[in-house]
Amino acid sequence: MSSPLPIAPGATIGIIGGGQLGRMIAVAAAQYGLKCHVYCPDPDSPAFEVAGRRTIAAYDDAAALRAFAESVDVVTYEFENIPSAAAEILAARRPLHPSASALATTQDRLTEKSFVAGLGIPVAPFRAVDDAAGLAEAIREIGLPAVLKTRRFGYDGKGQVMLREAVADPAAVMASLRDQPCILEGFVPFEAEVSVVAARNAEGGFSAYAPCANEHRHHILARTVVPAPGMAPETAAEAVAIARRIADALDYVGVLAVEMFLVRGTDGRASVVVNEIAPRVHNSGHWTIEGAETSQFAQHVRAICGWPLGSAALAGTTVEMLNLIGAEADDWTRILAEPGRHLHLYGKGEARPGRKMGHVTRVTTGVATGT
Amino acid sequence: MSSPLPIAPGATIGIIGGGQLGRMIAVAAAQYGLKCHVYCPDPDSPAFEVAGRRTIAAYDDAAALRAFAESVDVVTYEFENIPSAAAEILAARRPLHPSASALATTQDRLTEKSFVAGLGIPVAPFRAVDDAAGLAEAIREIGLPAVLKTRRFGYDGKGQVMLREAVADPAAVMASLRDQPCILEGFVPFEAEVSVVAARNAEGGFSAYAPCANEHRHHILARTVVPAPGMAPETAAEAVAIARRIADALDYVGVLAVEMFLVRGTDGRASVVVNEIAPRVHNSGHWTIEGAETSQFAQHVRAICGWPLGSAALAGTTVEMLNLIGAEADDWTRILAEPGRHLHLYGKGEARPGRKMGHVTRVTTGVATGT
Repeated sequence: MSSPLPIAPGATIGIIGGGQLGRMIAVAAAQYGLKCHVYCPDPDSPAFEVAGRRTIAAYDDAAALRAFAESVDVVTYEFENIPSAAAEILAARRPLHPSASALATTQDRLTEKSFVAGLGIPVAPFRAVDDAAGLAEAIREIGLPAVLKTRRFGYDGKGQVMLREAVADPAAVMASLRDQPCILEGFVPFEAEVSVVAARNAEGGFSAYAPCANEHRHHILARTVVPAPGMAPETAAEAVAIARRIADALDYVGVLAVEMFLVRGTDGRASVVVNEIAPRVHNSGHWTIEGAETSQFAQHVRAICGWPLGSAALAGTTVEMLNLIGAEADDWTRILAEPGRHLHLYGKGEARPGRKMGHVTRVTTGVATGT
Repeated sequence: MSSPLPIAPGATIGIIGGGQLGRMIAVAAAQYGLKCHVYCPDPDSPAFEVAGRRTIAAYDDAAALRAFAESVDVVTYEFENIPSAAAEILAARRPLHPSASALATTQDRLTEKSFVAGLGIPVAPFRAVDDAAGLAEAIREIGLPAVLKTRRFGYDGKGQVMLREAVADPAAVMASLRDQPCILEGFVPFEAEVSVVAARNAEGGFSAYAPCANEHRHHILARTVVPAPGMAPETAAEAVAIARRIADALDYVGVLAVEMFLVRGTDGRASVVVNEIAPRVHNSGHWTIEGAETSQFAQHVRAICGWPLGSAALAGTTVEMLNLIGAEADDWTRILAEPGRHLHLYGKGEARPGRKMGHVTRVTTGVATGT
């Protein structure tokens, strides 16, 4: 369904998913006088605490999805693993941003990689793997090390296995991923993991934050620094241009994150290789709340409402964001007392290992130190 | 009730009052992983949209107040006109910040002025006025021009009348204020209206934002600029010291605003005269959301939870806040498109004349221009 007129303050945004991303979208929407209705199966969803309306129902509950869509003015989502049937139910009733086709393209790693490669954008070599025989053949073609990933529903390192040495028993490897359809990706020897968080609106307006460098621990984002240290301006510009080509090709509306590897060729020239696309606000953009003129959450709201995009300029010289994983959030009193640190906690009940409980942002103004 | 331990993330803050101040407190609390329960008689309250729990009940509904208090961990309020009986019900069950006695002192203009004068802090000359004869006598003592104000329940110029010339019929003037108990205040010829927004926690920790200059239109705040132009550093320091003496004397916990007149003596020396105290977050502190290290709302949450206060440092060189009154909010699309402007809308249904619909903040970094 198209949206001829922009959404006005007083309207209701429907958010599929009730995690911290939905929570921060809802807070950003509230600043603009918008209401939110959050849809999530989990009654303890963090986003419920900051939304005026909530629906607790499964993502395949067609009746609940229909009623939800009819109660709101525009629909968005905070995670990409919603069934395509749900997206179709929503899109038939209200503008859905990002679109069902952008979602379909990005929620399957094989479709996503094929799409990006088809734009002539560098990606790691990849092959579809449907079974043990296919895995053996893909390894022969791509070589090792390589990463075997399920095509769908992976996040934070879940649903993937690193293959470093010759695989004696491909069937056992496939079984460890529950024999789901997979993709084998050649390992990219990278200097850094970077991401471009950007927004596009329906008129084709585009705005990107400066590329940021991301450090992972146990496959979970631990630290983001912006601007990405050691990334030359021309490489950063290339990364942003790639994000724009992807957004344009998807006819994308909203905020997206393009995760990339920063690599250096044998000629010493730096370039980027696209790893994956997140069709939503992204953990590597949390620093924008205090660190940019417009937060990624406010920017997403602007984009899906048909509003002009805000400035993505940095608010300081450098910004650092640290995730608080599991028990790290227990340190909240110390963080609160440190000047210049902005504490965010997501209101999750139990600090389980590996669970994202919050984050801390520090904006530095002044002369950047070297390296 | 005392609160021996600080309130931890996951706890619930009870907020009495559901307007934009409660809304912005709830958003600040959410960033820290706190839940909110908002109590307000109006089912369309803006704060309900961002709170996980809400109670729709009158401020004199003892049963509802008791149930509300028992459902939360700490209670605060966003406006000072709650009945003292309500404050007592709440304070008997949970920590109430600011305290019932701070509330009682500041919700009656006569008590408040007497309290401030008793601290040796300059205030306008004032007299209690209970009837027409009292008004005539007070005018004889104080002189004209003077302002007659109801002792309680006044805000935004409501419940007050300016007396410039000899009053022929004091009974008619009293009738225009519905014969409520009043206070006559001598008019202060001021250079500027300024306010100090500050926070104090239970340990006596104190943090003040730079004094700001406030411009009113039709008795409603229209514009706030910080630092207050033309206010010398020593006068600003004097204003902050006065706010601290008031907060200390009230054993205050939370954010308060002290409104003052900036005056110049016959010797040319600038000083301040206290006009009134708002025992809550304040419209003249809205600029702190983008314009200070810690917003007044986050600071209030820190204070009432027993947390260390955050930095009140300015985020830029100067900050300007414009209220959007009534139809001014219709201009939202233009404001959204202007770089450097931060739009806030409160989600109120109808843009009635005189109604605060939102505000806009602009933070300027760099060299301040003169005057």
